[in-house]
Amino acid sequence: MSAIRVPIVEKILNANDKMAALIRGRLDSHQVLALNLMASPGAGKTSFILETIKRIRDSYRLGVIEGDTAPVTIDSDKISAVGIPAVQINTGGGCHLEASMVGDGIEQLPLSEIDLIIVENVGNLVCPAAWDIGTHMNVLVASIPEGDDKPYKYPNIYRGLQVLIINKTDLLPYIDFDMDYFRKGVEFLNPGLITFAVSCKTGEGMDAWIEWLKEQIRIQKNR
Amino acid sequence: MSAIRVPIVEKILNANDKMAALIRGRLDSHQVLALNLMASPGAGKTSFILETIKRIRDSYRLGVIEGDTAPVTIDSDKISAVGIPAVQINTGGGCHLEASMVGDGIEQLPLSEIDLIIVENVGNLVCPAAWDIGTHMNVLVASIPEGDDKPYKYPNIYRGLQVLIINKTDLLPYIDFDMDYFRKGVEFLNPGLITFAVSCKTGEGMDAWIEWLKEQIRIQKNR
Repeated sequence: MSAIRVPIVEKILNANDKMAALIRGRLDSHQVLALNLMASPGAGKTSFILETIKRIRDSYRLGVIEGDTAPVTIDSDKISAVGIPAVQINTGGGCHLEASMVGDGIEQLPLSEIDLIIVENVGNLVCPAAWDIGTHMNVLVASIPEGDDKPYKYPNIYRGLQVLIINKTDLLPYIDFDMDYFRKGVEFLNPGLITFAVSCKTGEGMDAWIEWLKEQIRIQKNR
Repeated sequence: MSAIRVPIVEKILNANDKMAALIRGRLDSHQVLALNLMASPGAGKTSFILETIKRIRDSYRLGVIEGDTAPVTIDSDKISAVGIPAVQINTGGGCHLEASMVGDGIEQLPLSEIDLIIVENVGNLVCPAAWDIGTHMNVLVASIPEGDDKPYKYPNIYRGLQVLIINKTDLLPYIDFDMDYFRKGVEFLNPGLITFAVSCKTGEGMDAWIEWLKEQIRIQKNR
């Protein structure tokens, strides 16, 4: 039976990758930078997006695409409540976003009036790692309460990252989290990975992230 | 293309369900109760298993099956370090356990010398929900830092539960978590769901869970 299934799966992956390349080309033609924000459920992706919006909206124009498995608009409502264009994608129970879904989402955003799109993927450390969704960078929001062993247990997602955010540093005093052990695991999988330790609650560490992000938007504008 | 794919997927699901029924029959013939422990990455599944072992090992004999995406033995080492037979299943990047994997795992355990098997599924709130792995009950470990909106965002997994554990209650003073909102979401999806709020760090709430679990083991022995 594997002889039947394998070529079909490859065909789907190829169609996804072709779609992803088309999306990236479209974003590039509008000089829009797009991030694929991934995380475990509850690591703080939406809070991180809201804190990023707060600190960058005076300099650059944003759009957000929210991916969820259920037909809810909890996260996209939070984004549009602060006046940022947001699109909700419901995967219908699916465990990750695919390029075609993101392509549909992007069509709902005014690309010529946007500098940065953040796509919030489904909360999942396994499946999103395998799918190119047409963005420029994979960003993972890890969080202190998840524990320091996650790079060892979910290596595939860490291997494919361009940026790592370590969120909820305000909880470090209350949780056994060995930062050296965590960072050693990350370094093994993804040497020299750009990393920002932040707290969306206190704002700690957000300035460094914003400064770096602004530089990436400028690079995309000058390509 | 969907006309080709759908029947293949159905065939796999049926094979899985048949295998799951066989596994359950084998467990029943040995009067062994088996739990499918699911959670987000880092919700505290392994800590919860270790705290359960500590409180029940004088009364009943345990075995543990650990599922991980990566070829690591971090969790199974913790279990065998306390003298409990443990089997590690590596899914090779796969996002959930399937019945055939659990069947192989169970063959490694001395069933006639065991009363309770806890299967720790891959950390994932989406994919494991769809797979019967041959256990008797689906148990979810939710955790306070994940946030109170998870039932709304991951309804499928909440719908299929027999028991819910709310872990890390010791972090409630440091996190905005609306317990009423959380419980309302759970009640909508799974009315009357048996729920235990616990802290594996302080031990709070564990006694009620252990008392309930012992009763389930007794019921399985007297079937």
